[in-house]
Amino acid sequence: MYLDTDARWPDGFDEVYRLGESVMSRVASTETPQPILAIVERRLATLAPGTGWVVVADRIADPGNLGTIIRSAEAAGASRIVLTAGTVDAFNPKVIRASAGAVFHVGIVEDATLEDVREGGYRLIGTTSHGGLRAQDYRQVDLRGAIALVLGNEAHGLESTAPIDEWVTIPHSGRSESLNVAMAGTILSFAIATQHEAPTAGE
Amino acid sequence: MYLDTDARWPDGFDEVYRLGESVMSRVASTETPQPILAIVERRLATLAPGTGWVVVADRIADPGNLGTIIRSAEAAGASRIVLTAGTVDAFNPKVIRASAGAVFHVGIVEDATLEDVREGGYRLIGTTSHGGLRAQDYRQVDLRGAIALVLGNEAHGLESTAPIDEWVTIPHSGRSESLNVAMAGTILSFAIATQHEAPTAGE
Repeated sequence: MYLDTDARWPDGFDEVYRLGESVMSRVASTETPQPILAIVERRLATLAPGTGWVVVADRIADPGNLGTIIRSAEAAGASRIVLTAGTVDAFNPKVIRASAGAVFHVGIVEDATLEDVREGGYRLIGTTSHGGLRAQDYRQVDLRGAIALVLGNEAHGLESTAPIDEWVTIPHSGRSESLNVAMAGTILSFAIATQHEAPTAGE
Repeated sequence: MYLDTDARWPDGFDEVYRLGESVMSRVASTETPQPILAIVERRLATLAPGTGWVVVADRIADPGNLGTIIRSAEAAGASRIVLTAGTVDAFNPKVIRASAGAVFHVGIVEDATLEDVREGGYRLIGTTSHGGLRAQDYRQVDLRGAIALVLGNEAHGLESTAPIDEWVTIPHSGRSESLNVAMAGTILSFAIATQHEAPTAGE
């Protein structure tokens, strides 16, 4: 840890060191680092059925996309981010930066399969940019309860054989090809939050 | 323009050149460029009142953020993207790439002021991450008709004296500080699209 002022050491850290600029530039992974670094324990979570909704990143390759997915899911209130094998490491420095630290505020489950998530009691909502017969407008789908929003690989999407309970898509009126997976994750996470906040029938 | 196959020249281009790799690497602005380049005319638009809704980027500094804002606004059906003085150039190569080409599919209005937009007949919807007394949950605000969604600078937001008709915020339940401006623009653009598609009273 490096502090460039004479501020007192923050609470909760065992050891605090002041680093010279040349040391800082060697240990930091960016060219113009923020003036503080921390070594933190990597904590992983397990699926915890019965505690809300989760987002599943299925073979997401780009660190910026995964970081944004984590950031928006955490902000929208997801209880877990689940990574399948083939997804970039959630603790990759670029993911951590893109998540704006949200990766430390939400449970990360690694190396899970879609079958694990389903067996955990979640209804799997698969996303596709292709629309097609199976996919419904996300605004017409019931996103309440124990659901898992499944986002697929940037180039290939989800496998058509994935064990998905319901497919959703985001209709768009522009001429561009499609939204990217991070933007889709953001829109859908907040759509889920809205449905979870709304009173359910009988309440 | 460079083509690395023997495919025929695409329609609509006056002149097509095949470039060697070493030439390509000198003229391209990225280290591993896509195998095609184009020189295109920079076309600007003017505000066109009566043609839907617009997004205003007020002193947005980061090219990636502006590109994402343009991409999601275009996908959601905005008719114009309006840039105030101090916003990064919409035709900056990083903006073009982040927009995934959407910048060529929607009218870009440069160097406008918020007053210009209001005088154009738009109701200005200002976004803030601070909530506060004035800002309403975006899901409770009427976003139909000729509205301008105004997104502010990454560090400073919109000026509190900006001529805003209605302030909106995106409530979030996570522990992270806030969504970034590109994510907020994406969520709000699609919220506007949803309200514009819904039948209005009397229809």
